[in-house]
Amino acid sequence: MADNSLIGQLVDALRCLPSVGPKSAQRMTFHLLERDRNGARQLAQALLAAADNVGNCHVCRTLSENDVCRICANQRRDQSQLCVVEMPADVQAVEQSAVYGGLYFVLMGHLSPIDGIGPEEIGLDHLVRRFDEGDIKEVILAANPTVEGEATSHYIAEMARSRGIKSTRIAYGVPFGGELEYVDGGTLTHAFTGRREV
Amino acid sequence: MADNSLIGQLVDALRCLPSVGPKSAQRMTFHLLERDRNGARQLAQALLAAADNVGNCHVCRTLSENDVCRICANQRRDQSQLCVVEMPADVQAVEQSAVYGGLYFVLMGHLSPIDGIGPEEIGLDHLVRRFDEGDIKEVILAANPTVEGEATSHYIAEMARSRGIKSTRIAYGVPFGGELEYVDGGTLTHAFTGRREV
Repeated sequence: MADNSLIGQLVDALRCLPSVGPKSAQRMTFHLLERDRNGARQLAQALLAAADNVGNCHVCRTLSENDVCRICANQRRDQSQLCVVEMPADVQAVEQSAVYGGLYFVLMGHLSPIDGIGPEEIGLDHLVRRFDEGDIKEVILAANPTVEGEATSHYIAEMARSRGIKSTRIAYGVPFGGELEYVDGGTLTHAFTGRREV
Repeated sequence: MADNSLIGQLVDALRCLPSVGPKSAQRMTFHLLERDRNGARQLAQALLAAADNVGNCHVCRTLSENDVCRICANQRRDQSQLCVVEMPADVQAVEQSAVYGGLYFVLMGHLSPIDGIGPEEIGLDHLVRRFDEGDIKEVILAANPTVEGEATSHYIAEMARSRGIKSTRIAYGVPFGGELEYVDGGTLTHAFTGRREV
């Protein structure tokens, strides 16, 4: 049904969702039209409202419909700790674990000079100003454990060091609840070199 | 993020799509807001246009934005054959195989007395009128190979027989390209009893 009928147009439009191929898009289209037109209308309204009104927090750069997101606006959070992550979804993941009570800074990506993504594109000019305000005592680096994420963390750690701010890296190791058999060699190397006395 | 922010509302609204759970909905939300706001707006428009304007074909009952769908309106199709399927997606599947050049009748379900779905709910009063118009010489039954689909096919076959119209059932057997090892016993039984001389 890749045609110009309204049904065909809806199938095509659903392809903008990640990991939705032609078959899934067709199944979603028939599901909505046969069983859930109200859901379809509500989804349309939610898409328009979010696309038009969600911007970035002026303080931490995460996605937010307000100028300052709820975490940055919350004075009860520890103002001396700043956790640096790549994406808004990472903030969600850390918040869900409830392990951390400080503030965040969201890079919205990582350094990637080959793609023209330098320090300014990931907001490090912004981050420097926060360092200089003097509230932050510890920067917790939590970029993704990839080559680009590591390079980005290293760059930020240098920035922090030159201003006398402590920087830490979240631990590498075997994931809790996993099976050792299926853990890759790089992770195991980190787990052994980072072993602690019990 | 199951909250009442616009982001939370979009995550919730995406759950109306089949097989989209909370994690996928969150991933879709971040993808759209970070990388594809135009896609989000186009999807919203396509949802509204389809939800408001797609109805059912007056002739075959499939989903269509016109009173008579393109297949029913196409005079070049064989007007003497009528293929009965359960859902609009089944019409798509048969059309894509390009094996069939006749018309369709879409039940939009199957007989299920326990759920209060009787002959009228699946449009059989409608189908009887088409039988009585006299153009149809063969009814090809292609409801799903389930207990309910079988019962529905049997019911329609009786309706056709009492009006002197031939009814046929699409063949059961091993799926082409499959491996015999993984074919279930019921299908193999049908494949053996339905074997043909070569």
